[in-house]
Amino acid sequence: MTTPDEREIAELTRLVREFSAERDWQQFHDPKSVILALVGEVGELAELFQWVRADEAVTAFAVPERKARAAEEMADVLVYLVCLADVLGVDLGAAARAKLADAHRRFVADEVRGRAPDKP
Amino acid sequence: MTTPDEREIAELTRLVREFSAERDWQQFHDPKSVILALVGEVGELAELFQWVRADEAVTAFAVPERKARAAEEMADVLVYLVCLADVLGVDLGAAARAKLADAHRRFVADEVRGRAPDKP
Amino acid sequence: MTTPDEREIAELTRLVREFSAERDWQQFHDPKSVILALVGEVGELAELFQWVRADEAVTAFAVPERKARAAEEMADVLVYLVCLADVLGVDLGAAARAKLADAHRRFVADEVRGRAPDKP
Amino acid sequence: MTTPDEREIAELTRLVREFSAERDWQQFHDPKSVILALVGEVGELAELFQWVRADEAVTAFAVPERKARAAEEMADVLVYLVCLADVLGVDLGAAARAKLADAHRRFVADEVRGRAPDKP
Repeated sequence: MTTPDEREIAELTRLVREFSAERDWQQFHDPKSVILALVGEVGELAELFQWVRADEAVTAFAVPERKARAAEEMADVLVYLVCLADVLGVDLGAAARAKLADAHRRFVADEVRGRAPDKP
Repeated sequence: MTTPDEREIAELTRLVREFSAERDWQQFHDPKSVILALVGEVGELAELFQWVRADEAVTAFAVPERKARAAEEMADVLVYLVCLADVLGVDLGAAARAKLADAHRRFVADEVRGRAPDKP
Repeated sequence: MTTPDEREIAELTRLVREFSAERDWQQFHDPKSVILALVGEVGELAELFQWVRADEAVTAFAVPERKARAAEEMADVLVYLVCLADVLGVDLGAAARAKLADAHRRFVADEVRGRAPDKP
Repeated sequence: MTTPDEREIAELTRLVREFSAERDWQQFHDPKSVILALVGEVGELAELFQWVRADEAVTAFAVPERKARAAEEMADVLVYLVCLADVLGVDLGAAARAKLADAHRRFVADEVRGRAPDKP
């Protein structure tokens, strides 16, 4: 049974799949192509932030228009990630929860506190 | 009120935030740093697929170990995306739904059917 | 002494440095910012190819306009790579030659012939 | 006639081509695959810098081992960029010089001085 908090990504997956099916675009969605599309969106996200000072970025992107622009690029990244997961039959939400559980074990809080992590 | 299908990303956000707070790692999570971390994970995802033939990629990644490896890298991408959204105060799920609604309008199914899309 | 074939990247470096200096833009060129800019250009390159079939990509990009677009994005990637190398004091050409010499040793031709490489 | 300063990238191209040919690896080097490999290397470069403070990055990477690691990742990016240019028949050095000449025209120094550039 699906618990309530497992539903949001499934819902996005259904929307992305429907969108592609209505346009007969699944033919373009082999994994390598979708990853390149994801890279394109990550690139657009990076461009928004590239010349903003690191210590001013949060403030700069609190301005509504800029925040909306960032949200759009992040949405695009998520949409392609969801699309890729669907193509590969990966349960993205479950994978993320598993990865975080694993990170808890690998990075013992008392040992790594305040030191620059490798991940995540 | 939050509907059931809006909860999954909020739950991931809570987990990522808790994980970072316990380790005092939020200090490292300025937007540019998190985007670079996201780029690192996208790079690892790309490496998994780089030399696989495009028309064999789905089959090759149906093998459990390989699928698990891809799921892990995709999970890492999602975790950093959720982290970035949290740092910027962006509602990632809402942004993705808005982007898909917008894509429905911009790409009229009857006009673009079967032709390589620009997005998404 | 610099041999003739070591000069091209040095010349590009000089052009990039001059360009930035004339505009007082070096202040923006800390390494993380330049890497984000590089990511942005790699994203634009990826977008050009994302929906082209893998087995048609070379032919599709032999068309002059498309080839010119790809060349531009590749040029942008190189410019930021040269900029980053300059900021970090890295001799990019020497590093690439060293890396290739190392790859020759690590990937013995008779052992790996025809099998998908990990690198490069 | 090739002038001396146009030779370095041609020489790298020759080395990359030879390396691939000896291993019968050209079969893997369709443009989309090479771009994914490039993305993988950019990801490794990003990971080196992700948690370093922006204002400490130059100093941190002046340490010989770290500088050597950065140089290696940058070399990998260049090698795949040269490989892609070779596959597509693009003259990378000429493209970069053309792009810089164009940037000189588009970004008039007196108009943009000291203001965050979009490019490059």
